Amino acid sequence: MSERTEIASLGEFGLIDHLTRNNETRNASTLVSVGDDAAVIDHFGRQTVLTTDLLVEGIHFDLSYTPLKHLGYKSVVVNLSDIYAMNAQPTQILISIAFSNRFSVEALDEFYAGVYTACQAYGVDLVGGDTSSSQKGFIISVTAIGEVAPDQYVKRSTAKVNDLICVSGELGGAFLGLTLLEREKKIFAETGAQPDLEGQSYIVGRLLKPEARKDVIEFFSEAEILPTSMMDISDGLSSDILHICKQSEVGCVLYEDKLPFNEEARQFAYKLQLDPTACALSGGEDYELLFTVSQSDYEKIKNNPNISIIGYISEASEGTILVTRAGNKHALVAQGWNHMHAK
Amino acid sequence: MSERTEIASLGEFGLIDHLTRNNETRNASTLVSVGDDAAVIDHFGRQTVLTTDLLVEGIHFDLSYTPLKHLGYKSVVVNLSDIYAMNAQPTQILISIAFSNRFSVEALDEFYAGVYTACQAYGVDLVGGDTSSSQKGFIISVTAIGEVAPDQYVKRSTAKVNDLICVSGELGGAFLGLTLLEREKKIFAETGAQPDLEGQSYIVGRLLKPEARKDVIEFFSEAEILPTSMMDISDGLSSDILHICKQSEVGCVLYEDKLPFNEEARQFAYKLQLDPTACALSGGEDYELLFTVSQSDYEKIKNNPNISIIGYISEASEGTILVTRAGNKHALVAQGWNHMHAK
Repeated sequence: MSERTEIASLGEFGLIDHLTRNNETRNASTLVSVGDDAAVIDHFGRQTVLTTDLLVEGIHFDLSYTPLKHLGYKSVVVNLSDIYAMNAQPTQILISIAFSNRFSVEALDEFYAGVYTACQAYGVDLVGGDTSSSQKGFIISVTAIGEVAPDQYVKRSTAKVNDLICVSGELGGAFLGLTLLEREKKIFAETGAQPDLEGQSYIVGRLLKPEARKDVIEFFSEAEILPTSMMDISDGLSSDILHICKQSEVGCVLYEDKLPFNEEARQFAYKLQLDPTACALSGGEDYELLFTVSQSDYEKIKNNPNISIIGYISEASEGTILVTRAGNKHALVAQGWNHMHAK
Repeated sequence: MSERTEIASLGEFGLIDHLTRNNETRNASTLVSVGDDAAVIDHFGRQTVLTTDLLVEGIHFDLSYTPLKHLGYKSVVVNLSDIYAMNAQPTQILISIAFSNRFSVEALDEFYAGVYTACQAYGVDLVGGDTSSSQKGFIISVTAIGEVAPDQYVKRSTAKVNDLICVSGELGGAFLGLTLLEREKKIFAETGAQPDLEGQSYIVGRLLKPEARKDVIEFFSEAEILPTSMMDISDGLSSDILHICKQSEVGCVLYEDKLPFNEEARQFAYKLQLDPTACALSGGEDYELLFTVSQSDYEKIKNNPNISIIGYISEASEGTILVTRAGNKHALVAQGWNHMHAK
């Protein structure tokens, strides 16, 4: 190898595009492959949905403020979120872990207690995995399997012009929780002062113990809504809506005053002199669902308190726009989680 | 946490038993869960088979003598081997990697070249995955998906008394390849002498570029043989036949003079003053298939040059026995790969 290209020069998504540029599909059962929240496999008329995530200590989580039980729970939930983001029901998981010798059996028990709690809460079975040593730190790989009726799965690439853009729940909380915990960790390291998490249980909970939006998928089923496109928000709203626009070859208009905030999160943002809108756009790990629906579904959506309509899909030529409270238009930029999370 | 139990006190299999002791199955589609080469999921009358493995630099592979392309190939193959060990056909894989900043795009391209070569050789699709940074080293997680007709999957727990015990290919080669490469690495570190791999391409190839026994599964199908139990040999014959015996609640008798060796491997073992039988019993990573068949299948098996009949299944009360060339009987012990591989 005479050349050396730094991975950072491609970025995460550029790297994935690069590594999968020659990927070929050989099995007729492979319906959706690389490039969505999960893959879809045809199984004799029904469809199986598959996704996997790798979580690495020091990159994705910090054990100095993350209880192992919460980490086990979250490791499962973030994968189930990808299954729900395909409009499918998760059914099984596989989980592999690697750990250095600083971990005891009791520590792994705590982690698995969280894993099993999540399995129970979401009705999924743990059906396999692998355990291994690591040279450094704790590494977690989770694969989730789900199922969906034929033609009911929802991809990222099928949003249509004039569709409504919707988001479940509230945004920015997990990023503010991370900011708080990183701040308290720094203060503790410098002064030995115990963390002051008073009144911040919402944002800390959003980071450490997120939930996947099973309820929203159930609502779609009951209300007979089939979103035209969907993904879960793991990197931040800006970055994620840009994925939908790029893959669907459309543009979008989002309205700042429609973005859903939690009041506690908003107050904490002001306290830190952070812009709540920036937190909602660029903070990640909220694991809310970002989806588009046809305008004809407006009546079915409008009274659901868990769903906010935040904008609409436009022609690709109109770009990807945020309309501020003051009525100004800004181009959305993919300044996602990784960027803000970088240390 | 007031107690601390060292993980080493349980061992790998003890740890897995411990962590999954309260694992419950909630979905009727979960046919085979934790404890076999792969899980089996019912999909509306057909069956999906799932397995996952985690490979960690410094634990499972050493990049000082493992070409990245070979590593990519092997990462896929070891998972496909688990699918074949269920008598199923692999169809898709998911692959996640984490890497430190010492890796370049060109290095990852080499790794993926091996991944895609394996996908092509075995006719599987890469359908998803995840990429991430790591604090140290290269970490690979592969999940493989396969399919099998109803009631055709083969578990570890269903061997019957008087069944014939069979193994595909030859044993001990990968362990000898590892021994050679570790020795040359040490000599290079001490003296700077270039590796002497003259005439050792067989054993080096067995370690660095193993193949999964797709051909044996195809033979079963053509010859209409359904093994009564099966697994792949990843930890070593001794350790792996003991899994089958424990899970099937039976004993076994193996014959030393029936164990299949490669002549080059045997000569290298003698050169290092290692006992070839010990290498076959306790060396791992051969990825051959270990299986049992009913005696009524003897005529179908006996002339296949890729299959050796190495013993038979006995009552549990008779124990797990190796009969030596001299006619002595020894209890088989699970001195597997991890033990020999420990540095």
